[in-house]
Amino acid sequence: MAKKYKGYLIDLDGTMYRGKESIQAAVEFVKKLEQKQLPYLFVTNNSSKRKEQVAETLRNFGVPATADHVYTTSMATASYIAEQKAGASVYVIGEEGIKSAVVEMGLTLQDENPDYVVVGIDRGINYEKLAKACLAVRAGATFISTNGDIALPTERGFLPGNGALTSVITVSTETRPIFIGKPEPIIMEQALEKLGTSKEDTLMIGDNFATDIMAGVNAGIDTLLVHTGVTTKEHLELVENLPTYTVDSLEEWDI
Amino acid sequence: MAKKYKGYLIDLDGTMYRGKESIQAAVEFVKKLEQKQLPYLFVTNNSSKRKEQVAETLRNFGVPATADHVYTTSMATASYIAEQKAGASVYVIGEEGIKSAVVEMGLTLQDENPDYVVVGIDRGINYEKLAKACLAVRAGATFISTNGDIALPTERGFLPGNGALTSVITVSTETRPIFIGKPEPIIMEQALEKLGTSKEDTLMIGDNFATDIMAGVNAGIDTLLVHTGVTTKEHLELVENLPTYTVDSLEEWDI
Repeated sequence: MAKKYKGYLIDLDGTMYRGKESIQAAVEFVKKLEQKQLPYLFVTNNSSKRKEQVAETLRNFGVPATADHVYTTSMATASYIAEQKAGASVYVIGEEGIKSAVVEMGLTLQDENPDYVVVGIDRGINYEKLAKACLAVRAGATFISTNGDIALPTERGFLPGNGALTSVITVSTETRPIFIGKPEPIIMEQALEKLGTSKEDTLMIGDNFATDIMAGVNAGIDTLLVHTGVTTKEHLELVENLPTYTVDSLEEWDI
Repeated sequence: MAKKYKGYLIDLDGTMYRGKESIQAAVEFVKKLEQKQLPYLFVTNNSSKRKEQVAETLRNFGVPATADHVYTTSMATASYIAEQKAGASVYVIGEEGIKSAVVEMGLTLQDENPDYVVVGIDRGINYEKLAKACLAVRAGATFISTNGDIALPTERGFLPGNGALTSVITVSTETRPIFIGKPEPIIMEQALEKLGTSKEDTLMIGDNFATDIMAGVNAGIDTLLVHTGVTTKEHLELVENLPTYTVDSLEEWDI
């Protein structure tokens, strides 16, 4: 008999959809949350999209979602910086999502001598961007990476993820970044604050043990692993921190 | 009383010149080697230039040098691959030096499903190049990096070196590359073969403890550290494998 939770943090890729295909049981599950007026927030390591874009993708899959239901690692990154230094200057490597999140938080985009260097996935990466980031970190800027994901699943196979791009600066400057996204607790603490429920009353749902479940473990939140994405049952036999619950499909989960 | 050596392996940047400025004592030293008909070979981790270009730079500084006096990590990389698999297909990230060395060695440049992936410094790096390299390494290509230098000294400061660019693929594919350049013994063994003197009769000269001196140590060759570049006397107090000899200037070295 599972506990009744009052709020849900939910992963996207592998949990709500796989690439361009929705996961129907997950869509129905979120519809039930909405009907029962249980608060939910989608928590994603994808830094490239704005929250409005993420919500639109979800609605196209039939998921009841507005921008207020979305919490991206870009939002968490901008929020983290603003808490430390309101109006800070930031040199950003990344796409639309991280740049707009930084600007919306009242931070300033700045190429030279910034207070912070932020790295998010950037498929327009080039040597000059990496050079600027290295110079800034060597000059004392605080080095932040939206997430440490090493690979991006695509139709072509696994392409370099943000954790891999970030490593250029880590290796060159011999400086470790602060990672914001799952499995780090930073994004989880911020998402919880937005969701408004307590740790005890919140469940983190995701398909990826290394990011989603470990994010819950690191933040002290109960977790539900759903086998619709990355992590297999065989894989779970090898890990130390088991999820609180495991299901094959969200159909099995009563709220 | 130092031993008399019959052949010399000599570093370039920090030993023969600093940026655009020659180191005069080093130029005079190489002139003496030439007069005494002692064989010498410049051994460099710079993969971006062809040997003819490197020789021309040296001649502009007044150093007696032909392309036959130059051994680049690109040449060592191409030679290493050809020894393993003549005519192998290679996907190359890098500039002119590595691409021409690969082609001159009879290897084939190939973007998809190559036998080898080679990464050299590439100031035209982009996401698609990194993506192709990751896909090839995941598909089983042997992963080689011309050198692990983490930073490039420039007038702007330290920019990302090839070891930093290489790390994108290392991190994303969880596969370590074979490094060819100094301090690895691979480039040294190949340079020795080209120089034609025995290990016992050869001296490695350089300014950088971590690359030049450790290359000699790893290859079992005596070393001379010259304090005209990277490594200071204070730094030497912290290391385990001391150079065989140390001088402030090559003026002090009798041949």
